[in-house]
Amino acid sequence: MKTLTVSLGVRSYPIYIGPGLLDRADLIQAHVPGKQVLVVTNEVVAPLYLERTLAALSGKEFRTIVLPDGEAYKTLDSAMAIFDALLAERFSRTACIVALGGGVIGDLAGFAAACYQRGVPFIQVPTTLLSQVDSSVGGKTAVNHPRGKNMIGAFYQPRCVLADTDTLNTLPDRELSAGLAEVIKYGFIRDPEFLAWLEANIERLLRREPEALTYAIERSCLNKADVVAEDETETGVRATLNLGHTFGHAVETGMGYGVYLHGEAVAIGMCQAADLSRRLGWIGEGEAARVIRLLERARLPVVPPRELDADAFLEHMAVDKKNVDGGLRLILLKALGEATLPVVVAAGPLRATLESYGR
Amino acid sequence: MKTLTVSLGVRSYPIYIGPGLLDRADLIQAHVPGKQVLVVTNEVVAPLYLERTLAALSGKEFRTIVLPDGEAYKTLDSAMAIFDALLAERFSRTACIVALGGGVIGDLAGFAAACYQRGVPFIQVPTTLLSQVDSSVGGKTAVNHPRGKNMIGAFYQPRCVLADTDTLNTLPDRELSAGLAEVIKYGFIRDPEFLAWLEANIERLLRREPEALTYAIERSCLNKADVVAEDETETGVRATLNLGHTFGHAVETGMGYGVYLHGEAVAIGMCQAADLSRRLGWIGEGEAARVIRLLERARLPVVPPRELDADAFLEHMAVDKKNVDGGLRLILLKALGEATLPVVVAAGPLRATLESYGR
Repeated sequence: MKTLTVSLGVRSYPIYIGPGLLDRADLIQAHVPGKQVLVVTNEVVAPLYLERTLAALSGKEFRTIVLPDGEAYKTLDSAMAIFDALLAERFSRTACIVALGGGVIGDLAGFAAACYQRGVPFIQVPTTLLSQVDSSVGGKTAVNHPRGKNMIGAFYQPRCVLADTDTLNTLPDRELSAGLAEVIKYGFIRDPEFLAWLEANIERLLRREPEALTYAIERSCLNKADVVAEDETETGVRATLNLGHTFGHAVETGMGYGVYLHGEAVAIGMCQAADLSRRLGWIGEGEAARVIRLLERARLPVVPPRELDADAFLEHMAVDKKNVDGGLRLILLKALGEATLPVVVAAGPLRATLESYGR
Repeated sequence: MKTLTVSLGVRSYPIYIGPGLLDRADLIQAHVPGKQVLVVTNEVVAPLYLERTLAALSGKEFRTIVLPDGEAYKTLDSAMAIFDALLAERFSRTACIVALGGGVIGDLAGFAAACYQRGVPFIQVPTTLLSQVDSSVGGKTAVNHPRGKNMIGAFYQPRCVLADTDTLNTLPDRELSAGLAEVIKYGFIRDPEFLAWLEANIERLLRREPEALTYAIERSCLNKADVVAEDETETGVRATLNLGHTFGHAVETGMGYGVYLHGEAVAIGMCQAADLSRRLGWIGEGEAARVIRLLERARLPVVPPRELDADAFLEHMAVDKKNVDGGLRLILLKALGEATLPVVVAAGPLRATLESYGR
């Protein structure tokens, strides 16, 4: 087992990575301060991992809420269902919420934990590659609004994260690839050495070789933890984690939540960001091609959906929360392995990418 | 104009107190960082003060949402209405939310500001005595759940508070008294000198003499700011601000939100807390009588509603959020002018107070 620490002063917390962590009652119980525990999970994860999670909570007064699966349920209504469950049991402000599932469960349960009685302890048990490397690190919690993803949320840190690599064995291929999009992102934005490792080892990750997966998760979490520790509330360098995300949000909202997985949309968005960076003269054609090639090898989509034209992209990008006072600001690449801070992009090159790349 | 500062490091903010502040465009605009402003208010306050507030925001891109009046609308649904309004205008994360109204508007708009895009700037313009001395100071935001008040919320600090004492001229007598309950509370819990001043000047406050009101608001805010600065997230001394509140919550929830005003319920609760403190031998009969007498002179109810018996109180007190892991912890008085930290109270004396006091 590897242990990383996200350094945030009194709110610092450990991320445990490795096989067999679900059964480690000692680990999870060390981070449950009271007696009451509500496990939040969904209908797909519950049959696979709920029993083992509850066994590790033996001796606690635990309850469970099992939500339907999918981004469509990352809503204020689902948060209300969690509040209802907590209040039906009269759970107090020392009650602990455990999120057992992927990013949707983590974001939703984290938001509920942030709001219930103005904040109760919270533990993340991410069961997808994406949530292990991304949404479980950094304290971002949220639910969606019909007009935009993650529009309602809070910065709220867990007491710990348990990333059990064994849970990836039940992950569908498509979701594994979606998780790899975020793993690869760290190579693009700040870790050229890791990028080279990924180019050499991507097939090992697709074959789910445990050693390769563990290394990739650890390296991704280290990268993200570094960035988050530097900039907890996203006023500076943390914005670089959004490479491809503004384009990607347009894909997700334009096509309707759930048609593209988040990581798939981000993969397309990173290709568009690379294309735009090339048009602005910051990276060369060979580098833009490397971006696309690696994502393609990870079995990710690399061209935008035919249904969304440039105007549709602009429409959906403008409401994105990275939009500040009307100007469209994007994260781009100034080199392979180095992202820009948010830059205001001229309409011309942006439209050229939206109209030409992948069309 | 008086200016107090609530000291919370980078989140410190000023409270301006005095007449004519609504028209001070310089004051409010100094705390609006971007161009977009959403003013949240209600149907009672809007006809009185909205026009002047918008005039002070001249030059900004402002929008308004006018909600129905009353505690019944301090809900997640109302928060959703605010999110809908923000997203309909595509307001960004630099948009500022201005809460114009009493505690309900402040708590609700503050919670919406805490959650919208994980936090946008927020300004409080409290227009009731209660919200000027209580809910506008300390960063507590929340909405109610059918099973309990303030069960869903966040700790979130405003950029500034503008307490315009002129707005109290339109306040109904009953609400003025309800505000005085919280003012008087500071005397009971930590400021015996202020308590003596209140006993000498309560009629001046009821006559709304501007000088007396200004002094009482300032002194109350100073007391609360001191406590909050010492203990922002309510892990210690801040709990003393809840004198009478656990009893009071039972009155409010037991009778249904809106039958008793918050301050009225707290007045009854403080009398019950004084009675219980007397039974435990911490204060004498004369001191308990002083508590009741001052609240009575402020035209507040001092006996619990006939409809709620001891069992009903216990039922509604147990779900209160000051309940920790099943034990009922209360703030009581160890002297007049000095509250206890939360103490676990034996069932016997508690039941004696609930069955005997005011019956």
